[in-house]
Amino acid sequence: MSTFLREPPSIRIAASVIVTATAVIVVGGGILIRVLDHSEYSNIWVGMWWALQTVTTVGYGDVTPKHAAGRFVGVVVMLEGIAFLTITTAVITSTFVARAERERAIEEGAEDAALEERLDARFDELERRFNRLESILGKADT
Amino acid sequence: MSTFLREPPSIRIAASVIVTATAVIVVGGGILIRVLDHSEYSNIWVGMWWALQTVTTVGYGDVTPKHAAGRFVGVVVMLEGIAFLTITTAVITSTFVARAERERAIEEGAEDAALEERLDARFDELERRFNRLESILGKADT
Amino acid sequence: MSTFLREPPSIRIAASVIVTATAVIVVGGGILIRVLDHSEYSNIWVGMWWALQTVTTVGYGDVTPKHAAGRFVGVVVMLEGIAFLTITTAVITSTFVARAERERAIEEGAEDAALEERLDARFDELERRFNRLESILGKADT
Amino acid sequence: MSTFLREPPSIRIAASVIVTATAVIVVGGGILIRVLDHSEYSNIWVGMWWALQTVTTVGYGDVTPKHAAGRFVGVVVMLEGIAFLTITTAVITSTFVARAERERAIEEGAEDAALEERLDARFDELERRFNRLESILGKADT
Repeated sequence: MSTFLREPPSIRIAASVIVTATAVIVVGGGILIRVLDHSEYSNIWVGMWWALQTVTTVGYGDVTPKHAAGRFVGVVVMLEGIAFLTITTAVITSTFVARAERERAIEEGAEDAALEERLDARFDELERRFNRLESILGKADT
Repeated sequence: MSTFLREPPSIRIAASVIVTATAVIVVGGGILIRVLDHSEYSNIWVGMWWALQTVTTVGYGDVTPKHAAGRFVGVVVMLEGIAFLTITTAVITSTFVARAERERAIEEGAEDAALEERLDARFDELERRFNRLESILGKADT
Repeated sequence: MSTFLREPPSIRIAASVIVTATAVIVVGGGILIRVLDHSEYSNIWVGMWWALQTVTTVGYGDVTPKHAAGRFVGVVVMLEGIAFLTITTAVITSTFVARAERERAIEEGAEDAALEERLDARFDELERRFNRLESILGKADT
Repeated sequence: MSTFLREPPSIRIAASVIVTATAVIVVGGGILIRVLDHSEYSNIWVGMWWALQTVTTVGYGDVTPKHAAGRFVGVVVMLEGIAFLTITTAVITSTFVARAERERAIEEGAEDAALEERLDARFDELERRFNRLESILGKADT
């Protein structure tokens, strides 16, 4: 699990916010629809059953708000549901993409290290040539 | 919010276009279905209630078009709904991916800077060797 | 539009295949359900209306297959619908990500070019030092 | 197909787990709802028909659980359905992104190889200058 969670903090926060908001909307929407649309929703559990159907976009339609006030609650729950689905998909997708990216970054890091080592070897060779040159000149001097 | 919006302009434009188009489709589709399917939709608010259900793919089915003309409106609203969901998901996801990418780019930039500094140090060393060589030759000359 | 389409060929092919498959499924499923579930679907247009609802996951439920054969068609249409939604979202998202990536690649390319130019300048300097050394030695020789 | 599957193992595992879990939920949920909500679901095939509608978020609502126990099964099936849709979208999207990324990585690899070759050529030139310098000094020595 933890290996999946190496995302920027703002994305992790987005994930927690949307999950919390959805839970609040299901519970709150379920209670509110019971209050506002008394005849259709016999208790708050029916309200929450409807709210969860709506937030997940399943929408059986076995219980639906009949009055304007209830439908207004429905609009809010639907829109939050879209936010929930799109943000959840985005969080999981970006986690997967980041994961694949990290594996590629490791490969690239290895290539960069190989290049660096090779450049160092060539610099070392040049310095050896300087040493040789100086020793030749040293002998020439004497 | 602004930190989430560093996307190429074309993606930001896509986001505004799809949100605007969806708002237009919900209002316009709601009015049109009221006009075309008079018996099922008693007023334009019922029409918009149906249009929003359709665009979010909730689809309770408590009110649905019964005539061919109304169903044709339904087809348009459904297809726009799919465009809305897929493009919205794509915009949010690419924003999250870009954000994770930016953090990685900063790390990589630091590594590149370290390599550059190291190469510079080696070049500096070679130039010091040239100076030493020239000063040896200068002495040899005299 | 064309600026959005710089994806690997296989992704463009996936996009065309899924759109074509979905069109075929809506038309074919609509015809087949009319044939298999005669009493519920009075004509093929009702069949296609149902197939499109299903493929987009709207699912009003105003017309639904009642017999096993019709429901089997429904299963196929539903599963194709999921493939349609997920692949369409994936194609659009990867196009957006690639677009953002391309802008970043241009920036990185500029940085790489700056590094290359700087390394070249340092190599040029070393060669100038060789020239000077040779001219000193040339004078020393004479 | 195989060209689409070069993802980190954990993502491939996520794909298999979610597909298996969804199959289990559709079959298991269909059987369980038949047991718990006897009057609404005349046989397990109706139960599975309902479970598949729910998991894909189509939700016709032609058969829906009426009792608390059945609705509890419904809640589980709905939540698994959201996991199925979001994870499936994420797997396909990250596969597409990785594919586009791979093509770009090949291009970048070619650029890196060109830079490396060019740096090598410059080092070779410096070594040739050392050889010339040594041969000048060799002559000077004699």
